[in-house]
Amino acid sequence: MSEKKIPYKIYLEESEMPKQWYNVRADMKNKPEPLLNPGTLKPMSFEELQGVFCDELVRQELNDTDAYIDIPEEIRNFYKMYRPAPLVRAYCLEKKLGTPAKIYYKFEGNNTSGSHKLNSAIAQAYYAKEQGLKGVTTETGAGQWGTALSMACSYFDLDCRVYMVKVSYEQKPFRREVMRTYGAKVTPSPSDTTNVGRKILEEFPGTGGSLGCAISEAVEAATGMEGYRYVLGSVLSQVLLHQSIIGEETKAAFKKYDIKPDIIIGCAGGGSNLGGLISPFVGEKLRGEADYRIIAVEPASCPSLTRGKYVYDFCDTGKVCPLAKMYTLGSGFMPAPNHAGGLRYHGMSSVVSRLYHDGLLEAVAVEQTSVFEAAEQFARVEGILPAPESSHAIKVAIDEALKCKETGEEKTIVFGLTGTGYFDMVAYEKFHNGEMSDYVPSDEDLAKGFAGIPSFPGNEVF
Amino acid sequence: MSEKKIPYKIYLEESEMPKQWYNVRADMKNKPEPLLNPGTLKPMSFEELQGVFCDELVRQELNDTDAYIDIPEEIRNFYKMYRPAPLVRAYCLEKKLGTPAKIYYKFEGNNTSGSHKLNSAIAQAYYAKEQGLKGVTTETGAGQWGTALSMACSYFDLDCRVYMVKVSYEQKPFRREVMRTYGAKVTPSPSDTTNVGRKILEEFPGTGGSLGCAISEAVEAATGMEGYRYVLGSVLSQVLLHQSIIGEETKAAFKKYDIKPDIIIGCAGGGSNLGGLISPFVGEKLRGEADYRIIAVEPASCPSLTRGKYVYDFCDTGKVCPLAKMYTLGSGFMPAPNHAGGLRYHGMSSVVSRLYHDGLLEAVAVEQTSVFEAAEQFARVEGILPAPESSHAIKVAIDEALKCKETGEEKTIVFGLTGTGYFDMVAYEKFHNGEMSDYVPSDEDLAKGFAGIPSFPGNEVF
Repeated sequence: MSEKKIPYKIYLEESEMPKQWYNVRADMKNKPEPLLNPGTLKPMSFEELQGVFCDELVRQELNDTDAYIDIPEEIRNFYKMYRPAPLVRAYCLEKKLGTPAKIYYKFEGNNTSGSHKLNSAIAQAYYAKEQGLKGVTTETGAGQWGTALSMACSYFDLDCRVYMVKVSYEQKPFRREVMRTYGAKVTPSPSDTTNVGRKILEEFPGTGGSLGCAISEAVEAATGMEGYRYVLGSVLSQVLLHQSIIGEETKAAFKKYDIKPDIIIGCAGGGSNLGGLISPFVGEKLRGEADYRIIAVEPASCPSLTRGKYVYDFCDTGKVCPLAKMYTLGSGFMPAPNHAGGLRYHGMSSVVSRLYHDGLLEAVAVEQTSVFEAAEQFARVEGILPAPESSHAIKVAIDEALKCKETGEEKTIVFGLTGTGYFDMVAYEKFHNGEMSDYVPSDEDLAKGFAGIPSFPGNEVF
Repeated sequence: MSEKKIPYKIYLEESEMPKQWYNVRADMKNKPEPLLNPGTLKPMSFEELQGVFCDELVRQELNDTDAYIDIPEEIRNFYKMYRPAPLVRAYCLEKKLGTPAKIYYKFEGNNTSGSHKLNSAIAQAYYAKEQGLKGVTTETGAGQWGTALSMACSYFDLDCRVYMVKVSYEQKPFRREVMRTYGAKVTPSPSDTTNVGRKILEEFPGTGGSLGCAISEAVEAATGMEGYRYVLGSVLSQVLLHQSIIGEETKAAFKKYDIKPDIIIGCAGGGSNLGGLISPFVGEKLRGEADYRIIAVEPASCPSLTRGKYVYDFCDTGKVCPLAKMYTLGSGFMPAPNHAGGLRYHGMSSVVSRLYHDGLLEAVAVEQTSVFEAAEQFARVEGILPAPESSHAIKVAIDEALKCKETGEEKTIVFGLTGTGYFDMVAYEKFHNGEMSDYVPSDEDLAKGFAGIPSFPGNEVF
């Protein structure tokens, strides 16, 4: 098919939308390591996990053998409200850069939650409803996940309780109001509604909270109420499974026009978007059917893949969750407060970590100012205002396209545009005012984080 | 075609996108009255208008004979970045309401500017560029129009100077930063950069500004600089022409599935969205080809159609612009400060005014709290967070659907969902906190506004 026929936006028909999620673990020879009970250091059993998570989600979490899992019809119907997400040809960006490269992006910001998080939120809410639960609890920092979960729970008429890091609750009142619009109960964390919250408030009366504390409160709240479970927006294998809809749609859209991408780029925080985007393509690599260059982009201020250790670590700073084998900076690691947006997690999904460890993808770390420069350059020609997280991928896509300009190669590049930046204008303002810093942790800073990683036979960091 | 086959979202193919704007004035037997020079009370000539507006836009403003006007290819290419906008079947809302009515909405919020304003902004920027101009000036209040124009100017590498009402500049820093991201120079109005601004600052040192003042500054700035013109985001006939892309796409999408709407609903401020949505359908009515019930929805706090006078009036509070024949509350009328969002304009597009006067459309006024109730109801099931302006149309669409529930009629209702409410969370917060008021101007309040309408033979208000 001649290039001229490729539209600006490739939309799948509803009938072409994927009906199954793809579970990349099934095709991995080296499976991601199992979650461990921090007390016994034994793999977490179904029974241990079902007290915290919905039964079906536990099954998905533990399932590393079925390559395809049917998407229930009710979830597919919800997906139809905002999916298929367009695969956009960045004609204007290509022209602006003067590159022979062909650049595409999969845009996941076309829904009110403003990001890809909704893909998993609706699935998790559905299974909670199916199980006859009354509601779910979660934590949120920047607010993308909390917003997505609020929407999903509203759709299924499920109670939704969000513990929002107090400093974000106060500084991001708009995020809070969106969640309230969808009927969620939003509590600034630490709060006096949980034991762990009261304890922290007693110890640190003026604290602005942390994600670790909010997770602890959300887990305590869920396990302490009849008919509630805790849900999480990234890191877990079940989340990557749900997010595979991104990659499956991308693959189908490319197939429609007989296009094969050369380079696939995604931003990486906990791994939900990256894992979802790349899964089907990694599957082809694992099965020897095709080869792609895959690049994970992380912030230089929180460089879990490029500078972390591949060991078992706590998933939360409160250390209430199981241990996961992953690239980690240590659960006590905190990125500098001036770091904008998400991608602040100390670890990385076990699936992405394993794939990276086995050489199936590359990783690069980029600094904040260059990310916002790329974001603004992109916005001015493509018209979409990208989230800071997504802009990490934009930065590297532009870099790769400029390399093609030097070499004259007509590579096809695709990146994940995970969401919009409407609620991140404070960061854009800092960028415009030249007040953005490019802090990169020193080796000494990292050593402090590594020191908090649990040490046991086979899991020595130093 | 059976109903089951209608997808959640009807997308046109790029090849099906309209290539012409539709100029409803050509089909109107009673044409809208011409703009008058306030000094001579004679119709404004091409020469008089071209000092303020781009030549081609003046031609479009004066053209009430050509029914179709080609959309230049460059504008069509830009449109392809965010259009066709989906026509969405509100299956979830229908289910929630339990109505036999079929509800559709044309969603114009799928671009960073967040509203339909971009449809005209890109056209106006294009013609400015074609004329070899250096830049354009404009005013903005809430910020939707300023944002759209900034994006459009960035695309054509045109200087963009936005005079933003000072109180909005300070209270809506995020809107300001979006415009800066697109390279616009945003000045709080009144400012010391213009004579009129300096004069007002001297007289009222602490003023928060007004739209009327910002218009005056923008016009002075444009006419005082070589290579600049002034542009406007609503009210003018040229703007309705560009916005006809909304109605043309809606018509084409319905046609694809052989659907004929019974009721067409749009929110009405200056008339840009309403006029654009209904134009092609009104054209059919005018030509006797079809009949539709058309409803304009305005806020009860600023009821130009339902309680205004159909006379010549100033288009701006600063009284620097020509006189227009329209439904007006008087250029001195100011809606209560607690009124949320846009739709605050004292008058109404001449085209919409004429059509309303001739009985081609109905108008209803709705109160603020009921609008936000409808907005929240819609958001919770349809997933999109609507702008307060758009929610006026949602309110009446729901009302009409509930009437169908009573009568059992399976009417097809379509409304314009003009944009998203991401930057309106302060209003949502007031609504959640029960702090929203439903002020409706008394007859005395209106009389004060009417007193400012110019009186001359044939234009007596009292």
